[in-house]
This record gives sequence, structure tokens and C-alpha cells, in this order.
Amino acid sequence: MLSEFDLIKQYFDHTQINDARIALGIGDDCALINPTAGMQLAISTDMLVSGRHFFPDADAFMLGHKSLAVNLSDLAAMGARPLAFTLALSLPEANPTWLAAFSRGLFSLAKQHDCHLIGGDTTKGPLNICITIFGEVPFGMALRRDAAKVGEDIWISGSLGDARLALGAYRYELHLSESMLTSAAQRLHQPTPRIDLGIALRGIASAALDISDGLSGDLGHILERSQVGAKICLDDLPVGVILRSQDLARRREFSLFGGDDYELCFTAPKEKREAVIAAGLACQTHVTRVGEIVEQPELQLLDALGQNLTFDDTSFDHFRSS
Amino acid sequence: MLSEFDLIKQYFDHTQINDARIALGIGDDCALINPTAGMQLAISTDMLVSGRHFFPDADAFMLGHKSLAVNLSDLAAMGARPLAFTLALSLPEANPTWLAAFSRGLFSLAKQHDCHLIGGDTTKGPLNICITIFGEVPFGMALRRDAAKVGEDIWISGSLGDARLALGAYRYELHLSESMLTSAAQRLHQPTPRIDLGIALRGIASAALDISDGLSGDLGHILERSQVGAKICLDDLPVGVILRSQDLARRREFSLFGGDDYELCFTAPKEKREAVIAAGLACQTHVTRVGEIVEQPELQLLDALGQNLTFDDTSFDHFRSS
Repeated sequence: MLSEFDLIKQYFDHTQINDARIALGIGDDCALINPTAGMQLAISTDMLVSGRHFFPDADAFMLGHKSLAVNLSDLAAMGARPLAFTLALSLPEANPTWLAAFSRGLFSLAKQHDCHLIGGDTTKGPLNICITIFGEVPFGMALRRDAAKVGEDIWISGSLGDARLALGAYRYELHLSESMLTSAAQRLHQPTPRIDLGIALRGIASAALDISDGLSGDLGHILERSQVGAKICLDDLPVGVILRSQDLARRREFSLFGGDDYELCFTAPKEKREAVIAAGLACQTHVTRVGEIVEQPELQLLDALGQNLTFDDTSFDHFRSS
Repeated sequence: MLSEFDLIKQYFDHTQINDARIALGIGDDCALINPTAGMQLAISTDMLVSGRHFFPDADAFMLGHKSLAVNLSDLAAMGARPLAFTLALSLPEANPTWLAAFSRGLFSLAKQHDCHLIGGDTTKGPLNICITIFGEVPFGMALRRDAAKVGEDIWISGSLGDARLALGAYRYELHLSESMLTSAAQRLHQPTPRIDLGIALRGIASAALDISDGLSGDLGHILERSQVGAKICLDDLPVGVILRSQDLARRREFSLFGGDDYELCFTAPKEKREAVIAAGLACQTHVTRVGEIVEQPELQLLDALGQNLTFDDTSFDHFRSS
């Protein structure tokens, strides 16, 4: 006789893994991975909590997608290729409709990236989704936060701010037409991890990370770890298709501070400009040069005319105090 | 300026890692591991939820210990040597006293096993602790659940039932003197992962797992995965030092069904008996032979005289229906 929570496992343990690197998947005390010679293993973990990272009534399919996407995005930011993940799930109840939709959202993205579920844990409790993800990157080729050098270009993949715009509409901070909200919400609920671009940037980009909390704060991590500063032209930031219809102040604010877009921010030597553009084209991912790494350890913001801008936002405290 | 949750990170990101296999620890999008040639990576994840896996007022030091111990125990059950772990933590508030005690409990056990914290996530939410652990085991030497063979002995490390006895006292199902409860509670709150024994049993034991939910259910996993049955002499089970003072019915029930002891249950060929005992001696861990693997796919229980026993317990449904 199966318990309620054994039944849950059936939603997640239904796929046969055909990958010689996965020696043992779900069903034992541990999973077993056969690492590939010459590769480093990249590991990241993210915990998503109801009411904090997603609305309590979030669509289960999109939540399954997003839970894995934010982890895949961490692999993308290292230039790692996805291999496998574990899923720990705390659920208030075993609702078959919810579970079926969540696992469909999860596995459709997992399959797209050949990323295998190799283990997990299921328990009763407040809704909490914890994924730990594993990827491979050739020895010494990972795109680290501490590798930005003075004089390098700063690049952004895709576009910024539409996820923040959708959040603003949900919070009644602003109004969007139904079709605009649908489009912006797609960016919030179903971010596209830039796996192919991360891999294509190996040997081209120096430092990289994914933008989850907003460009200003996240770029700050690169600056801090690399002990450098940056000059960004605010009006060069690639603005999301819906955000483009908004006024200048909001375009600037949301593209600089808006989180949840999961685009890559990376640096590369000036002589690699053509290689960066070629990498973007090869992955059908737009890349935009938005500024450069400078010695002075702060984030300088310029407008289209090269004039200095300042923002009154707590995310800037770190830079203010430096 | 650091946020409340940046401060939390300070409790966990204070140790320098001196291990060539950890190429990159906390602070980037991913950690990076350099796998050892010829080794498989063993991976396990466990999620502990307040009110389900521990009392809401649980001592933070012991909780830090237990959170890692249950994961280490999964490595022990595979014969893997600990390498590293990630910690995802959801907390209702950033309480420095709690955090200091929790991290002390966690790191004291981690240090004992050279197991490095390489990454994590911290968020605000209902108390939830999710650890994913990584260990190494020589290629093909892992102790898997599906490897038990007919005719093999069944062994148990240490002793069973004292953790269940403490739980019974906390639930007012039974009474223990204060000194007895202190001793039994030690087993419940601070289980000892049998890492050394798991490693010593490589090449000796066939199948293994750790007993977290009770011997009858957990041994059932070995039987199911190995497609065999087992004959256990109930009165041969190694009974916890406090449980020994209880009557026969309780001794039998708690040693067979009591969870949370985190002892190893493993099988080994009869000709390896001396090697098993030597492995136990080398690790200063008592090992007890309690039965044998048989063809008939069920769990038979015998008393000291070899008479069949039956129990009316839901944990047996699986066997009843087979």
C-alpha cells in the first residue's frame, strides 16, 4: 500500500535516464554521477518559498518551469552545461491536479536542456521548493564573478525590466492593458535560462552572472568580487518590449533595478566584441554592450549624452559607502 | 550596508576551504568541484520541516547537527566519503542567537567529517532546512539497495529503538526517568552517521541503507529493489541501552519499527562474516547479525525459538500484500 507521499513520487519518478554519466538515479540513499574527465562540476541551489518568490495561487505549470529555470540560469551564468538536479518539495497537501501541472512544467524545461532529475525528498509542510542543480564546464573555463578586468566591455543578454513591469501591475503600482500584462508576465513566470549563450561565451567572456535581483545590485557583485568599478550608459540598457511603451523614468528605473528577468550580465575584452556578437547570433540571443569596467570602485551611471545620473535607491547604498 | 539576510550569510561563510577538490565555494552563481579521477559522486538531499521532522522549539545546536547528520547518513549508506554540501535555509526571522547555535552544531559535525559548505540560499519563510550533500566512492564500489542476494546475512550497526523511546516520552506515550530520557534523546537529536563503517564495508557488504523510518520499512526497500525476501530473528535485534530496560513487547516493537536511529542495515555474503566483524572493530562500531536474505519475497519475523511472529502495523502492508 502506498502512502500519500509515495504517490507524489510517482509524478517525478517516471522517466528512464539514458545518460552514461548518471550511474544511479532516484530510489537509493544517494544518486551516483560519473563525472566526465576534464570537466568541473558546477553546483547551485535555490529555495523558492510561497508568498515570497511566487504568489500563493501561482499557476503550478509555470511554477514548475520557474523553479528549474532559476537554477538553470545559475549554470548559464557559469558557462556550464546542465546535467542533473535534485528536487526537495514541501507540500501542504498531495493535490494530484497541482502535482501533475507542476511536474509537467518542470519536466518540459528539464527535457529541453537534457537535465535529469536524479533524487529528491518530499514532505508535508508549507509550500517550499528547493532544487539543487549540477552542470559541467571544462576545467578552468567557468565564467566567474571575480574575473572582470579594467577596460573590459559590459554586456547584457536579451532585455530587462518586463518582469518587474508585470510585478508592478500585479501589485497595482501601475496599469497595463491585458495583452501587455500577458506578455510582460511571461517574462516574470517563465524566464528563459541563457544556457546556450553561457556555453558560447566560454573563452570569450571574463566574468558573468545572471540578473535575478536587478542589474545594479547584481553587477555590484561582479564589481565587489573583481575589485573594480563600472560605467553604465543607462539609456543603452536593452529595455523589454513592453517596458519600451513606458515613460523614460520608469524605463530607466525598471531596467536598472528590476529583478526576475534572468538575463546574463557579462564582461569581455574590447577585442572580443565581434566574438561576443557572433556568440549571440549563434544562440539567437540578442546581446547589448552597455558600459565598461573602470578602476574607480563604484557604479557610475550616465545618460545618453554622457552626463552623470544618480538614483535614490537603497540598492545603491553599497556603492555610496565605497 | 548589509541586509538582514546578508548578515545571516556571515554565520555560514566564515571558513576557508583547504581542499583541492573544491575549486570554488560560496559567493558565485555556482560552486565548482574538481571530481577525483576514478571516483563516482554520491548525491543526496533531505528537507527538514519544523513540526514534522523536529519540534518547533528544538535546540538550535542539535538541529544544526541533525540536519547534516541525516544527510551524512545517506553517504554512509552508500559507502561514500563526505566531500561537500549546500544549505538552503528558510527562516521566519534572523535571530542571531539561534543562527550562532545552529551554525555551531552544523559546522562541528561538518568539520569532523571534512565536509565543506560550498553554497546555499537563505530566504524569509517558515522554518525549513534543505541540505544537499556530496561524497565520493570508488567507481562501482557503492553499496546499493538493489544488490542483496539470497543466502546473504543481514547486519545492523549500533543499536535500535532508543530514538523512538525518546519520541514516545516526548509524546507522553510512556514515561522515562530524567537520566534515561537524556540518554535516549541523545540518539534522537544527535544521531551518529556511520561514515567510517560505510567506507570500511566497501567490497565486503553487498546492499546497504540507513534506518531512518524503522528497520521493517527500510529493510523493505532493500528487499523490493533486490527482489528478495528476508528472515529476521526479532530477539537478535541490537536493542538500545535504554530500551533494554523496557518490557519485551516494547523492545520488539521499537527496535523493529522505531525510526531516527540512523544505523546502517546491510547484507553481506556468509563467507564475509569475519571481514564484517573486523570492519566494525576497526571503526569501533558494534555490528550484529540479525537474519538472512531468502528467496520468498516477504519479511519473516522469528522469535528466539525460531517461531514465526506477526505484527499488526501499517508498515507491514507492503509485505502483507505481496
